Amino acid sequence: SIDAARLLERLRELGQIGRDDNGMLVRLAGSDADKAGRDAFVAWIRSAGLEVAVDRIGNIFGIWKDHKNADDAPVLLGSHIDTVINAGIYDGCYGVLSGLAVIEALKAAGFVPARPIAVAAFTNEEGVRYAPDMMGSLVYAGGLPVEEALATAGTDGTMLGAELERIGYAGSEEPGFLKPYAYVELHIEQGPVLEREGVPIGAVENLQGISWQRITVEDEANHAGTTPMSMRRDAGHAAARVVTFLRDRARNANTPTVATVGCMSFEPNAINVIPSRATFTVDLRDPDEGRLQAEEAALASYLKGLAATEEVTISVERLARFEPVAFDRRIVELVEDAARKRGLASKRMTSGAGHDAQMIARVAPSAMIFVPSTGGISHNPHEHTPEADLVAGANILLDVVTRLAAE
Amino acid sequence: SIDAARLLERLRELGQIGRDDNGMLVRLAGSDADKAGRDAFVAWIRSAGLEVAVDRIGNIFGIWKDHKNADDAPVLLGSHIDTVINAGIYDGCYGVLSGLAVIEALKAAGFVPARPIAVAAFTNEEGVRYAPDMMGSLVYAGGLPVEEALATAGTDGTMLGAELERIGYAGSEEPGFLKPYAYVELHIEQGPVLEREGVPIGAVENLQGISWQRITVEDEANHAGTTPMSMRRDAGHAAARVVTFLRDRARNANTPTVATVGCMSFEPNAINVIPSRATFTVDLRDPDEGRLQAEEAALASYLKGLAATEEVTISVERLARFEPVAFDRRIVELVEDAARKRGLASKRMTSGAGHDAQMIARVAPSAMIFVPSTGGISHNPHEHTPEADLVAGANILLDVVTRLAAE
Ligand SMILES: NC(=O)NCCC(=O)O
Ligand SMILES: NC(=O)NCCC(=O)O
Repeated sequence: SIDAARLLERLRELGQIGRDDNGMLVRLAGSDADKAGRDAFVAWIRSAGLEVAVDRIGNIFGIWKDHKNADDAPVLLGSHIDTVINAGIYDGCYGVLSGLAVIEALKAAGFVPARPIAVAAFTNEEGVRYAPDMMGSLVYAGGLPVEEALATAGTDGTMLGAELERIGYAGSEEPGFLKPYAYVELHIEQGPVLEREGVPIGAVENLQGISWQRITVEDEANHAGTTPMSMRRDAGHAAARVVTFLRDRARNANTPTVATVGCMSFEPNAINVIPSRATFTVDLRDPDEGRLQAEEAALASYLKGLAATEEVTISVERLARFEPVAFDRRIVELVEDAARKRGLASKRMTSGAGHDAQMIARVAPSAMIFVPSTGGISHNPHEHTPEADLVAGANILLDVVTRLAAE
Repeated sequence: SIDAARLLERLRELGQIGRDDNGMLVRLAGSDADKAGRDAFVAWIRSAGLEVAVDRIGNIFGIWKDHKNADDAPVLLGSHIDTVINAGIYDGCYGVLSGLAVIEALKAAGFVPARPIAVAAFTNEEGVRYAPDMMGSLVYAGGLPVEEALATAGTDGTMLGAELERIGYAGSEEPGFLKPYAYVELHIEQGPVLEREGVPIGAVENLQGISWQRITVEDEANHAGTTPMSMRRDAGHAAARVVTFLRDRARNANTPTVATVGCMSFEPNAINVIPSRATFTVDLRDPDEGRLQAEEAALASYLKGLAATEEVTISVERLARFEPVAFDRRIVELVEDAARKRGLASKRMTSGAGHDAQMIARVAPSAMIFVPSTGGISHNPHEHTPEADLVAGANILLDVVTRLAAE
């Protein structure tokens, strides 16, 4: 079994890095807080006696190999340590620190793996500062040229490449330098399913498709007091229509489609001026690619109609688009088998969130293990998973890795 | 007649003061740009040979009096020189500079007024940085204690009093130190009526009531990918519902009510996080006090229902509330009479915008003169009034002042 006390202590410690003035956890990719989190992780990798490697997109690897198996494809574990704004302490960090805990447990037990085992912290999984999300693993899997990723402009006008240089994590390895034999990612569910059903282990067999767009509505600003309702072309109102359209459509459909408007801003943003511009984001997800395309088409046609009836100009920019992914059936079965042997119930399920495993699945057999999230809450300071579940999940990861690393 | 060339030249000159990096005019109350605009106005007052006075709320007065009439109540002209964000060059400035032009014309013509004539630039009429709007004239009229106004916190966290100190316009006169015999404010219409009807002069007989509120919706942030639509409590969506409610209600009513949501912000404002907080402003206006109250009540009851159905917390803060105002009937007739004598059509009308005259009407007989706004556009860089209309309006002001100052 893994060293539960040390895992929980490190989770708490990493969770204190990047607190803002209000005590909120904000460790955005490429920020000073991200650097501090990375430094802590690298120190733990070193204290575990592993080799440290950093690639050009800033992904960090802790690699356990010996001279006999050094050239074999490694079993890769991992996730990310960047966070959203006002984050919880488990999202991503739990998978990274558990991966390290698994390697430490195997080393301590004198286990002799047939191939290297490595733990990764991928850059910018959250995509909050730089879109798209899962960027480090996407680049790693060859889905985005590293130069293009490094040139991504952030919400604050910074460039990811420059920020990685600044914080000392623009590494020298070529992304993809380690070709994994298999990839396993342990993560909190971030949704309500496991808790509601009282099941401690999720054997994640697929992951829904993700479509991110930024929409801008433009028209003519005018005076809030003197412009009759009939003469208004109101960008803010048009944006609000899109929000209610998406919500009503997704809520009334009998499908798992989710639609979210997370960012919104008005210009000039003055109390007595009819907005001349509204900019907002749309996050659409569905486990079925056909249905996701249908939702995107429905939004596009709604926008077209709205532009005509409201006499506004609407432009759409694609920020991210990932098809649904099916994970490796054999690894999913290893997860179920490990749970069974430890006397824990497990459940095959779909991931609602995007994860690095979704990208690595392009280049290696991959799967994920979920543990429950209290109240289904994530991307929120109240994100929580009971300690017993955290420890159980890490031990399932240990068991699965023990099997894969022996092959 | 007034010196048309000089008036137009000063309008252009003042309109260049406070241009931002994008060439947009932004001269918010108490800012460095406001200081520069005030300095220019004060220099023009001095070059006209008038006495300069500044009161504690920063209102600037240029006073023409001689030893014989020094103690009589003055005819007061004026408006404001602060602007909205991305403003036009006429809103406010036109009334202030025309007021000065009228005094200069009377002086040049050797006119001997029976009472002093003064021109005022009132502080923070727009209310963009510090609510409420018309603050300088409101304080002047005794509607808001000066200490309270000076302690107003701005949208950027600054305090108006500190900003006035900083820019050197925290004057020493007690607000209200000049008790006007009458107040006349010349302004662009900022709406479409005069242009549409081809009438050059508006004789403004009343001004609609204004209700400003800031509304905050709060709930629990959660993950955009994992939270089923049925389990969401989405502050952003609730805010959007209010926007569409206000628009539909005002548009479908057969009344002049106008409703605007000009400011909107989401928190944490991240693409994959369901908003935990949405803050927005509501600007409601109606010329009829009973109807304005009914609209406020309808909004309050909608918010109550929304809080219940969406399971969100909604709080409301009042930023400004002014009842409709009826102007002095005799001055309105003087405006119509002056137009008739100059062979210009005029029209009695309601002001859709709030103005300093609305406040000064509490302490002195007041009225306003409007000139057309091209396309009805204001609070926008494209705000425009043809030069002939600008000059005609200033000459009507001259004629009305000539009558009042002889009394
Ligand atoms: N796991 C997670 O929160 N990933 C961020 C990408 C997403 O929005 O799903
Ligand atoms: N005239 C003018 O734009 N005043 C600002 C106050 C208002 O919003 O009506």
